Amino acid sequence: MFQATASVIIALLMGIIGVGFVLWQTRRVLSYDQGNAAMRKIAAAIQEGASAFLSREYRVIAIFVVIVATIIVLFLQWQTALCFVVGAIASAGAGYLGMYVAVRANVRTAAAASRGLHEGLRVAFGSGAIMGMAVVSFSLIGMTVLYLVFNGDPAQLTYITGFGFGASSIALFARVGGGIYTKAADVGADLVGKVEKGIPEDDPRNPAVIADNVGDNVGDVAGMGADLFESYSGSIIAAATLGAALGTDSAAAFIGLPFLVAAVGVISSLFGIYMVIGEEQDVTQASTFSADTAVGRTVHFLRKQVAKINENASLEDLLTALRRSVWGASVVVLGLTLLVVVSSGVSFNYWLVIVVGLIAGNAIAYATEYFTSYTEKPTQAIANATQTGAATTIIEGLAVGMMSTVLPVLIVAVAILLSIWLGFKADGTIAAGLYAVAVAGVGMLSTLGVTLATDAYGPVADNAGGIAEMSHLSSEVRQRTDALDSLGNTTAATGKGFAIGSAILTALALLAAYVTAAKIDNLNILGPTMLPGILIGAMMPYLFSALTMMAVGKAAHEIVFEVRRQFNVIPGLMEGTGEPDYKTCIAISTESALREMILPGSLAVVVPLVVGFVLGKEALAGLLVGTMSSGFLLAVMMANAGGAWDNAKKWIETGQYGGKGSDAHKAAVVGDTVGDPFKDTSGPSLNILIKLMTIVSLVFATSFGSGWLSF
Amino acid sequence: MFQATASVIIALLMGIIGVGFVLWQTRRVLSYDQGNAAMRKIAAAIQEGASAFLSREYRVIAIFVVIVATIIVLFLQWQTALCFVVGAIASAGAGYLGMYVAVRANVRTAAAASRGLHEGLRVAFGSGAIMGMAVVSFSLIGMTVLYLVFNGDPAQLTYITGFGFGASSIALFARVGGGIYTKAADVGADLVGKVEKGIPEDDPRNPAVIADNVGDNVGDVAGMGADLFESYSGSIIAAATLGAALGTDSAAAFIGLPFLVAAVGVISSLFGIYMVIGEEQDVTQASTFSADTAVGRTVHFLRKQVAKINENASLEDLLTALRRSVWGASVVVLGLTLLVVVSSGVSFNYWLVIVVGLIAGNAIAYATEYFTSYTEKPTQAIANATQTGAATTIIEGLAVGMMSTVLPVLIVAVAILLSIWLGFKADGTIAAGLYAVAVAGVGMLSTLGVTLATDAYGPVADNAGGIAEMSHLSSEVRQRTDALDSLGNTTAATGKGFAIGSAILTALALLAAYVTAAKIDNLNILGPTMLPGILIGAMMPYLFSALTMMAVGKAAHEIVFEVRRQFNVIPGLMEGTGEPDYKTCIAISTESALREMILPGSLAVVVPLVVGFVLGKEALAGLLVGTMSSGFLLAVMMANAGGAWDNAKKWIETGQYGGKGSDAHKAAVVGDTVGDPFKDTSGPSLNILIKLMTIVSLVFATSFGSGWLSF
Repeated sequence: MFQATASVIIALLMGIIGVGFVLWQTRRVLSYDQGNAAMRKIAAAIQEGASAFLSREYRVIAIFVVIVATIIVLFLQWQTALCFVVGAIASAGAGYLGMYVAVRANVRTAAAASRGLHEGLRVAFGSGAIMGMAVVSFSLIGMTVLYLVFNGDPAQLTYITGFGFGASSIALFARVGGGIYTKAADVGADLVGKVEKGIPEDDPRNPAVIADNVGDNVGDVAGMGADLFESYSGSIIAAATLGAALGTDSAAAFIGLPFLVAAVGVISSLFGIYMVIGEEQDVTQASTFSADTAVGRTVHFLRKQVAKINENASLEDLLTALRRSVWGASVVVLGLTLLVVVSSGVSFNYWLVIVVGLIAGNAIAYATEYFTSYTEKPTQAIANATQTGAATTIIEGLAVGMMSTVLPVLIVAVAILLSIWLGFKADGTIAAGLYAVAVAGVGMLSTLGVTLATDAYGPVADNAGGIAEMSHLSSEVRQRTDALDSLGNTTAATGKGFAIGSAILTALALLAAYVTAAKIDNLNILGPTMLPGILIGAMMPYLFSALTMMAVGKAAHEIVFEVRRQFNVIPGLMEGTGEPDYKTCIAISTESALREMILPGSLAVVVPLVVGFVLGKEALAGLLVGTMSSGFLLAVMMANAGGAWDNAKKWIETGQYGGKGSDAHKAAVVGDTVGDPFKDTSGPSLNILIKLMTIVSLVFATSFGSGWLSF
Repeated sequence: MFQATASVIIALLMGIIGVGFVLWQTRRVLSYDQGNAAMRKIAAAIQEGASAFLSREYRVIAIFVVIVATIIVLFLQWQTALCFVVGAIASAGAGYLGMYVAVRANVRTAAAASRGLHEGLRVAFGSGAIMGMAVVSFSLIGMTVLYLVFNGDPAQLTYITGFGFGASSIALFARVGGGIYTKAADVGADLVGKVEKGIPEDDPRNPAVIADNVGDNVGDVAGMGADLFESYSGSIIAAATLGAALGTDSAAAFIGLPFLVAAVGVISSLFGIYMVIGEEQDVTQASTFSADTAVGRTVHFLRKQVAKINENASLEDLLTALRRSVWGASVVVLGLTLLVVVSSGVSFNYWLVIVVGLIAGNAIAYATEYFTSYTEKPTQAIANATQTGAATTIIEGLAVGMMSTVLPVLIVAVAILLSIWLGFKADGTIAAGLYAVAVAGVGMLSTLGVTLATDAYGPVADNAGGIAEMSHLSSEVRQRTDALDSLGNTTAATGKGFAIGSAILTALALLAAYVTAAKIDNLNILGPTMLPGILIGAMMPYLFSALTMMAVGKAAHEIVFEVRRQFNVIPGLMEGTGEPDYKTCIAISTESALREMILPGSLAVVVPLVVGFVLGKEALAGLLVGTMSSGFLLAVMMANAGGAWDNAKKWIETGQYGGKGSDAHKAAVVGDTVGDPFKDTSGPSLNILIKLMTIVSLVFATSFGSGWLSF
């Protein structure tokens, strides 16, 4: 096992380097100019609202964590409980840091945009990079330290599943709570502001406007970060567990491989990030390194890669800059993992598996972009349908969302098939094939540092736009922040595709680990309890989505009521002389998000346990398969329909079909509003549902028997 | 095998009795008064449109049938091809007869409603009963005759799977084509008539109004009939096949049981139908039978059961009358099947299984009613959401639809679990358990004659309302036809729940038969090709729904264009002096329905074959499980969301939230329009998709190998 330990130590070191980058970059972002007094005041309100929500959310989660940890100690062992707590703290820490920076980078992005487009991108993306690298490094450090602490204990990997469970729990509440918060505030602010009062979005007179801006951060920064923290940790844990269970001579290499892939992913992500935020320099200028040495050539090469973004850059140019960074990181990962695979002594096929994972991740992102971008046919078809009213807009949007599931499913199916086949060809067993699926997942997520950066950048740019609007910056600055914001919308859509794709691979690997851990010999699909399990599992995403959509509806209703009240009782509010009470709206969003997240959140933990104990461990496997397949479809459908409606509206706002204010635009607004909880609450929450149910099952795998019915 | 043959002959005799009833009842319905000249003229237009569509549809299907039959002859054997053709003809024949009567009963119902509420119900329900009994008897006669023709051939049951395949093919095109037709005409007529021109529904000035009325028949009578014809045949075939494969001494009894249950179901259904359409008589009056004899007591008892419907009957009273007939039939079935089970010599547990099936079917129907009736909370919540506009109406409706999946899934899961457990306890194998699931399906469908009557009654009442409106009958008559129509909406919603519930049990039984026939020993859920199969399978209902929803959108668009054109070019059309050209709208609906049904229809047949040959027979089993679970959920969600939106609108029209014409009502109309393709096209088509994919797999089961990838 020396090789495994050595790999883990390398991963730990890379995690530490990542943390170094996070600290350095945080100082750098915070050192930027914060703009004028008006901007600072708005930013302060957002900061206050965000930290109020996060600290209250974390308090609720802390209670949950204590309860679950106690249960784990009682039913399993203290080591797993310890890992559970560490996983929760690591994920919460990454989320807190990412949020802390994001709500400070927004105002700095607005200020930087006054100086230029690239300056703005650099600050916003730099803040996203902090989230991305924090997620990756905190996860790696947490898992590797725990691995080393329990080194020598044969159950060390079993304990570490607790880390994934802890991360999942945070993710659940962050995604669900954050998702409800952000959409309740958004929908509530729009229904009164835009529709009833006719004031623009991000208007400072709207009492819910700060809550809306806070929501972007708690939903899209903290929520998305926690989601991918979980996928990242889960895929590594699953791969290591399955690798150990293969029981071949190369077990140490199999355990080490995912850690090494993740380790080289850190370096590659840093390279990708550097391509966007690095300072432009004259590459011919004298350097401390001579161009003749290998190091010198590398430095020169790196410097040349820095994105040069023209001040008149189009959306396409900005997108290309971000894409180059992700592709650059992917290329570096491919090179380095080839070295890793060859030097590990495992079959070359596992490198091909990593290639499959990386390609699949990017392919899903592109498919998502096709279905949600307004330069493409599907979204334009929705825009066309707005001409015959809201009903046809909804029908067409739902149809587009459903149609958009085809490619992601085929991509994931092919990726799974190829991975299993490559693993099988390498080591002769289906178990090796399942290990290969887990490795594909690790490969897909290896560049997470930079892909998450492109994602978490979005809400910062969005906030920056809001701040620029509210503090009446010049139209030139607004144009720049708008460009940055549009870019964020596109990366958010592709990020969602990536998140669900990785969730499926991770969940499948965790399922395989569960089946191994539960010692299930034969998982016959026509076994007596299997089909009921699958059906109940397939139902879970529907129940979960119903609950979260209703929660958004209820919470938005309360916000509407409060905003109307303020417009009625505060004198001069509409005229801009009265001061709106932002805090009450923030308090309502916070309260309702926390209240409404309890039931769906608990279901995700309780249902697998109930099914496992009552119907037995086979039915539980069926439940997981059902949730995975039905949840995948529903999540992709909801995310893409939501994204497409949003962009169909944006396309009309560019002047199509009569532009803003036309009947077509009104129909498009209905589509966009329906899409809000689809794409930002219910859809993404399903990723977590799928993974959390699987990891709960894995952690308690040894406790389940054959159920109450005797067969 | 004598016992099996004897059972089959009994079933054949009952089928013949059923046909006798159908003929007698058809004469009876056609003998009713057809009303005045205006009514006859409208009815003639509907009749012409309906038969034009059906004959063109059947011509397209005939080509499909010939192609598939040829393929079957080439790849399998002529016997299966023969059964396939007979199945297609039997289903098409039942559908044609049902339609033929329905489009003649509509005008007679309107005329009868002038005489009284019970008279109207008797004609409309009597027409539904013809459809119900035709489906049951044609199916029974077809299968039993084929069984007897091939008697002695050990593969006789294998051949008969072809009958199910033939029935499925008709069902697919009838449901999809009919579904597209009906909603294209409905949405198209409403978008111009109600929204643009402000003329009421069923206004004779609207050129699409006849197409709309034709649509009710081709979608809800022929489509629903073919759907349940397939479930009915499929459940019996699956049960007999699984019974034969048990290979125990009681094989003959196991094969015979489903036929006997179906046979006693015919009697029970006739009893239930009699309770609604029987003539009221003075029960104390002298009779040819003395009250002292057993026969006499039975006749007295029967006469007492005739529903006495007050002329001031509320919706609740009418509903009670129909419910009593279904419950009456169920009670009779329970008594008779107890005799059958005891005399067959199979375990008493199989009677309990029949009870489980019957209860499950009714429970799903009640759950559906709860979620779609406007006297209940979920639909009222949607009505409440209309106050904040169309977007919240859609969000709430989708949430209600999703929530409404929970109970049906739990009911089906429990029914499956109990059936398998009872079968296992009776005969000691899981295979016996799967046989029991099939028997539960047969039990659920045993009273189909009367449940389908309550269902197929709906469109007749709906049409009667339209005819009464268009021919300006008195408001008293309109009130009666409205009451009958409302009742039809409720029974249509519960009918859809019943259809999907029975489709799942049938599909599961067919899947078990497929696994047996394909000689799959181990269907490990973590097998290499299984999860890709499941994911692709879960995607199929989404692809299928996307295609059918887009088809409705496209076809409705064409109708809108044509209706607008007619209002522009025909002088005096709006004033009622010009004559609309109904035929062009009918032709457009027909053309587009037939054109748009080809792609989704072919996918349902081609995809299982491709997966079976390319990925192998295990992946195909995975595909079927994926489609079954994901399709069940999506179908229930769409059907119930659609029903709930429809009724939320109706509730507002009773005066809630400002009633007709208010902003709330406009938002409700958006919901209703979105719900149209949900509940009448895409949702119900999924039943067929699930069953057809399964039966295609079963028919070709022996042709599939292990696929192209070597493991």
